[in-house]
Amino acid sequence: MSDARLIALDWGSTRLRAFLLGADGAVLATSQSEQGASTLSGADAFAQALTTVVRGWPALPALPMLACGMVGSQHGWCEAPYAPCPAGADALARQALQVSAKFWILPGLMHDGAQPDVMRGEETQIIGALALHPVLAEQACLVLPGTHSKWARVAAGRVTGFATHMTGELYALLRQHSVLSRLMPGGASAPSPESFLAGVDAARKDGGLSHHLFAVRTLGLFKRLAAEQLPDYLSGLLIGHEIAHELSAALPERLALVGDPALCERYALALNRFGLAAPLQLDNTAPAGLWRLAQTMGL
Amino acid sequence: MSDARLIALDWGSTRLRAFLLGADGAVLATSQSEQGASTLSGADAFAQALTTVVRGWPALPALPMLACGMVGSQHGWCEAPYAPCPAGADALARQALQVSAKFWILPGLMHDGAQPDVMRGEETQIIGALALHPVLAEQACLVLPGTHSKWARVAAGRVTGFATHMTGELYALLRQHSVLSRLMPGGASAPSPESFLAGVDAARKDGGLSHHLFAVRTLGLFKRLAAEQLPDYLSGLLIGHEIAHELSAALPERLALVGDPALCERYALALNRFGLAAPLQLDNTAPAGLWRLAQTMGL
Repeated sequence: MSDARLIALDWGSTRLRAFLLGADGAVLATSQSEQGASTLSGADAFAQALTTVVRGWPALPALPMLACGMVGSQHGWCEAPYAPCPAGADALARQALQVSAKFWILPGLMHDGAQPDVMRGEETQIIGALALHPVLAEQACLVLPGTHSKWARVAAGRVTGFATHMTGELYALLRQHSVLSRLMPGGASAPSPESFLAGVDAARKDGGLSHHLFAVRTLGLFKRLAAEQLPDYLSGLLIGHEIAHELSAALPERLALVGDPALCERYALALNRFGLAAPLQLDNTAPAGLWRLAQTMGL
Repeated sequence: MSDARLIALDWGSTRLRAFLLGADGAVLATSQSEQGASTLSGADAFAQALTTVVRGWPALPALPMLACGMVGSQHGWCEAPYAPCPAGADALARQALQVSAKFWILPGLMHDGAQPDVMRGEETQIIGALALHPVLAEQACLVLPGTHSKWARVAAGRVTGFATHMTGELYALLRQHSVLSRLMPGGASAPSPESFLAGVDAARKDGGLSHHLFAVRTLGLFKRLAAEQLPDYLSGLLIGHEIAHELSAALPERLALVGDPALCERYALALNRFGLAAPLQLDNTAPAGLWRLAQTMGL
């Protein structure tokens, strides 16, 4: 632990993940808790959650701490205003908010395109991906699947723009609360890749998402899909619509998927259905991003 | 009451509406209850709900009764299998299910197009609309907005095909359960037609529904729309996407909106934004449809 250099915090809505980083950003220790930003209220609660998650890490008082994610939102610990696109590591580092002598919170990113768009935490994962794979910094599209999937365009080391799709949230809403959920099994079911791909294929047809979704009901009603196949068909429809819309614009040659490996694998399968070669897949790039940004800040 | 000829029942998932019809289908009396098909289980419960809703109508024992809607679904009183498109009054009447000596349940409609699609109850509203406005029977598109909006093509008195959009259900899910709901006022808010139309306009741009929906969050976050404007913006987005997809196919010259007047007015406003002239608007055509179908059946 003696060569510890930074405490890096990936502090999202529902979870807090802490990384003790050594020289060159090597991960020396990790710790996590369910004390996400949406579960906490007031500076004392945030400070206590931080103390708890790093308990036992000996070098604590002397080390700088850098956090990204919803901890910097309006309802977080302190609001770190969004940096506007285009922005790279320099711009993000410049806008880091100093909360105390040794603790900083990074800003999120905003993009004011056809509609305003925001991210918090993903910008740090992107910086981490560029640090780990410098070729992506030249020109690439980085896809970060999740509750609110992000498709970010990168050029010359900066995020030039991005779009959010509420794919994961729509899946959860429809799976749990809609008429579609009635025909589905209650718990998890065996994965059905062929149903997932059937959903992806359906998404490529005319009709629109709000129409295609109703097929989850009718295919179940007429027993053309079994109950346990319907969740994967729904997932394929939603991910297929997301991809179809993003591919309707010109895409850089380099495409990378960043995030949970199982979810990235789903996206890779669907992208393949659209004729795209297997993209680079990167897991958990937040520590590398926090390390790179800490270096940029001179911490 | 002496000229009563038919008890007509519009028996949906959440509500039962009864009409005592006289000669020429004139409505002599109405009654309703919250005992929709989804609230009842078992033939006895349905029979009891029927008895209760028509209590006090003197001619009951001698009169034929005809019902449409979810009462004929798998989980209704008795399953009346779907009639396939194309289908008009003849085909629907032929497939009516006789439950007892004086009581019949009409089938729903199914359309096996690019994806299977179904309706129960709306087919009867469509028959009613054609009966009230025979010119629609030649060739028309009938739009029935609601939880599951239906766009039905009619030619030569028959429904040739239709598509469902889960517009109303998506609105309710997103309004109540999603991240978008957090920035909105809890209860009803003053209508904001300009926010509704801004949502309709946004739906016409590239990007896809799951992306456009996220603007409800960011426009609220950056205070470009006030909290009380967000529900109408969301409604405009969803209705706009529905219309944009339906208009991408060739549409018959005659368009009619059938259903709740306030909701039809919303659709008329949105259609106008797409350059369409004010369509015919019809309210509550189920009694006329049940009357026409009873005549076809010779009741």
